[in-house]
Amino acid sequence: MKRTSRDIRTANRYAVLRHLIAKSPASRGELAESAGLSQATVATLVGELTALGLLVEVGFEESAGGRPRSLVAVDAAGGALVGVDVAETYVHAELFDLALGVVARAEEELRPGGSAPEEVVGRIAAAVRTAVESAAAADARRPPRVLGVGVTMPGQVDRERGVAVRAANFGWRDVPLTALLAERLPYPVHLDNPLRAATVAELWFGAARGRDDAVVINLGTGVGAGLALGGTLHRGVTNSAGEWGHTTLVLDGRPCSCGDAGCVEAYVGAPAIMRTLRELAPDSPLLTDDEQTATIGALGRAAAAGDPVALRVVRETARHLGAAVADLVNLLNPEVIVLSSWVAAALGTPLLAEVREAVARHALGSPFAATEIVLSPIPTDPVCLGAATFALEGVLSSPGPTGTTLTAHTT
Amino acid sequence: MKRTSRDIRTANRYAVLRHLIAKSPASRGELAESAGLSQATVATLVGELTALGLLVEVGFEESAGGRPRSLVAVDAAGGALVGVDVAETYVHAELFDLALGVVARAEEELRPGGSAPEEVVGRIAAAVRTAVESAAAADARRPPRVLGVGVTMPGQVDRERGVAVRAANFGWRDVPLTALLAERLPYPVHLDNPLRAATVAELWFGAARGRDDAVVINLGTGVGAGLALGGTLHRGVTNSAGEWGHTTLVLDGRPCSCGDAGCVEAYVGAPAIMRTLRELAPDSPLLTDDEQTATIGALGRAAAAGDPVALRVVRETARHLGAAVADLVNLLNPEVIVLSSWVAAALGTPLLAEVREAVARHALGSPFAATEIVLSPIPTDPVCLGAATFALEGVLSSPGPTGTTLTAHTT
Repeated sequence: MKRTSRDIRTANRYAVLRHLIAKSPASRGELAESAGLSQATVATLVGELTALGLLVEVGFEESAGGRPRSLVAVDAAGGALVGVDVAETYVHAELFDLALGVVARAEEELRPGGSAPEEVVGRIAAAVRTAVESAAAADARRPPRVLGVGVTMPGQVDRERGVAVRAANFGWRDVPLTALLAERLPYPVHLDNPLRAATVAELWFGAARGRDDAVVINLGTGVGAGLALGGTLHRGVTNSAGEWGHTTLVLDGRPCSCGDAGCVEAYVGAPAIMRTLRELAPDSPLLTDDEQTATIGALGRAAAAGDPVALRVVRETARHLGAAVADLVNLLNPEVIVLSSWVAAALGTPLLAEVREAVARHALGSPFAATEIVLSPIPTDPVCLGAATFALEGVLSSPGPTGTTLTAHTT
Repeated sequence: MKRTSRDIRTANRYAVLRHLIAKSPASRGELAESAGLSQATVATLVGELTALGLLVEVGFEESAGGRPRSLVAVDAAGGALVGVDVAETYVHAELFDLALGVVARAEEELRPGGSAPEEVVGRIAAAVRTAVESAAAADARRPPRVLGVGVTMPGQVDRERGVAVRAANFGWRDVPLTALLAERLPYPVHLDNPLRAATVAELWFGAARGRDDAVVINLGTGVGAGLALGGTLHRGVTNSAGEWGHTTLVLDGRPCSCGDAGCVEAYVGAPAIMRTLRELAPDSPLLTDDEQTATIGALGRAAAAGDPVALRVVRETARHLGAAVADLVNLLNPEVIVLSSWVAAALGTPLLAEVREAVARHALGSPFAATEIVLSPIPTDPVCLGAATFALEGVLSSPGPTGTTLTAHTT
């Protein structure tokens, strides 16, 4: 509850930078208005961010009747951030400039079903190195100044200690991932969970931008709901908020991977959708490939083409998903609910239409009328983007230009 | 998302006053530390609150090696606030001093099953007048200076416009309650919902005090969950957050008063508990009286005395309540969950013990380990107390000593 003056400074730097990433250049007056801060505070913040190499002065703008106003902008090339999305079968890394545009990408494969920490650490380090080298090759005169790396790990994460507390699909418990990565990478590493990364990406760049209360639903193998309440990420007391996939939808229903029964995930996660397909049409040709990504992709294409079996599976999934989304509408009264991740992308518009109808049947009229339900508009991997913003957050909470400042690294 | 400087000033006044209500007297230094504000800001705020008649200087305290520090305290007798709890069968009013101690009480009955707005407005005005007169009679030399009245109305409330948008048990739609009360009462009136009032009461004075993330479960005829996230009330975009009673626990289950089926309220609200009793023991002597309050009261006494039928009803209720509470643990990861209102008070310790066991079966291990589950420790009506704090909030958001200031009213 108590915010220190350092917390407040970090939040204010964040507000100014967030505005400039969305819209550069801007005058100090615009920044003061948008962040709700005094002109004097903004002038100080702009000075600090400029000294950190994040902003540049970009000239003057005529102002009505007064002296010309100076404009500042994000110095896109002033530094780089890397976002890493670790999942059961892959490691994605994306290198961003400071305007959070993608500069380079790299990918490493993981064997499904439980990679050891050393292997995953090696793949993450390799992917980051490849992305940095590829960015350096693209502009040899100005190699990327990497300010930080954000890494997401599924499951329960202790971000302060940098520990993967529990990653069920990897069979991990209490793996000190940040410390292991520090031995391999010369950059500050920030660890968090992909659900929260995707939520921050929507908050900065996607469907939750400018909204006070938003929920970002992650539909993949696992299922979760990132909560952006009061304009910021709601983490909960042990950074585990959002386990909506393990709320009860059908008491004593289908068994769930968590050990309980009747959870939302047991009806709308990718394996659950495949189970529904098997139950409704055991001989469906869509099932020839038992691999999740391929099957859900084929299901989405078949539904879009009007295939009756695929449409029944989508409808049955939406019947459960809609009731569970209505729970979020009734409990949290958000402005927007975003369907994100690969299952949402694969099932797309047919799923969205059915979900909206199902939510309307279950939600109370007044909060339902106030809630938009949309597919994520972010065209790239929102988890990498969110992971990079966590790295940026780390940069902004550094002591600043009068302290030891941030350590810059070039290849 | 954007906070105006007036919002910030109100929040700061609130932080200072909240500290002093919890612990008076205090030095400006203590206040600055507890509120995370500068000494200069606190000095200004203390000046404003003193000019509003809310604080007094109460002398000096020796400080280690420096000059003595002056102490301030809430001026308990400097004003009065009235909190009014409107329910289907009654109107409770409590008059508080500025330290939020109860000075006087009054109660009016309402006929169950749909009172007209004029009748309810009349009863509210009568209860407030009786409470004010009773306080005036107790101390004739200093009649209460009533600074505001907080009124709670069940259902959907538009607090900005002062309208009861929807009150299902009353059959109301869009009743301008604040305007109607303004014709009868010479005090500023602040309207909100009892769920939010009970939550604020726990946040200021109860089990949620000093906690970042708390959920206050209201177990009565209706069922809801007040959300105190990041140390403040989460209202949602149309002030209707907390409708946990209408989240789905058993898809396609028992019909619910909201028109949907399988909602939490259909298993754990007072009428649902009576239905469970009727299903388990149609001939139970506990059912002789069909009135909710009497039956639930008898059930609680029987369970505490070890009656096997009563214990089975409590266990069956807890089986559902525990699964639904686990949903809150998994989704929100709170520090504390408080069971409040009359059904929780009547079923008390036997219910709490069974609920804790049921939550343990359904919640994920890590957030469950971080969550306390307790009965409300507030000895008086938390809804009246919360309603009075809403009135206090109204006083604190007044322009202040340099503006038109607040209007004081004495009988």
